[in-house]
Amino acid sequence: MKIIIVSHGDFANGILSAANMIVGDKDSVKTVSLKPLDSPDSLKERIIKNITDKDNDYIIFTDIPYGTPYNVVCSLTRDYKFEHFSGINLAILLDAILSKDTMSSNDFIKKIENNINDYFMNPGNILKDIDNDSLCMEDVFL
Amino acid sequence: MKIIIVSHGDFANGILSAANMIVGDKDSVKTVSLKPLDSPDSLKERIIKNITDKDNDYIIFTDIPYGTPYNVVCSLTRDYKFEHFSGINLAILLDAILSKDTMSSNDFIKKIENNINDYFMNPGNILKDIDNDSLCMEDVFL
Repeated sequence: MKIIIVSHGDFANGILSAANMIVGDKDSVKTVSLKPLDSPDSLKERIIKNITDKDNDYIIFTDIPYGTPYNVVCSLTRDYKFEHFSGINLAILLDAILSKDTMSSNDFIKKIENNINDYFMNPGNILKDIDNDSLCMEDVFL
Repeated sequence: MKIIIVSHGDFANGILSAANMIVGDKDSVKTVSLKPLDSPDSLKERIIKNITDKDNDYIIFTDIPYGTPYNVVCSLTRDYKFEHFSGINLAILLDAILSKDTMSSNDFIKKIENNINDYFMNPGNILKDIDNDSLCMEDVFL
């Protein structure tokens, strides 16, 4: 699958910079950013440029449900074929990058939805019961 | 509560730039970034500078469980008082900004955990059943 992130401001490039520090795979993800003076139509044109090859399997991540990037991507569903998931975080992006060559966008969306709690953690809930060091893994710096 | 985001690369500043485009509240959130040549100790020192006032109620968001920001924040739990949630996305950050004057960090963490699915959306699942336009709300550009 081909991965595209559409966001307000510098979110898309920022989350990709974090992913690149961990997996060093900077060329496999496209980003499209809505800047303060951009119109929704200009955003739409820039997204379309990334999803025109009908032989590719696209997954588009947007930053937040009901924001402009989300709404513009929704408006493209009639004319272009892709999967859309809104509310990306870094764990989801990394999993997508590591799965892009082996999973379809449709299967990946199902994986996120079936395992949503795997992409978050409140360490406090766990640290109450076990030794602090065993969870923090301070020697493992990703 | 006081909000701090700790991340790899430009993720923290990027997600904050997106939040600022929506709520325009750029001064209420602190960011601490781990750049490629930074050591965990320098990251730790920069985080500590933001959590030294014992009269404040701090919530620290990190980008991904078991990454360096997460591990460094975990290592501070013995000596500093704060809540920690890892895996932030834009909807969670916006909700935190809008809740910072009325909720404690502990109550906010519980709210996220009890309503985690509210912070994500796969429009495809919903669009199968209802009219496309009614969900996309193309006239509402946040």
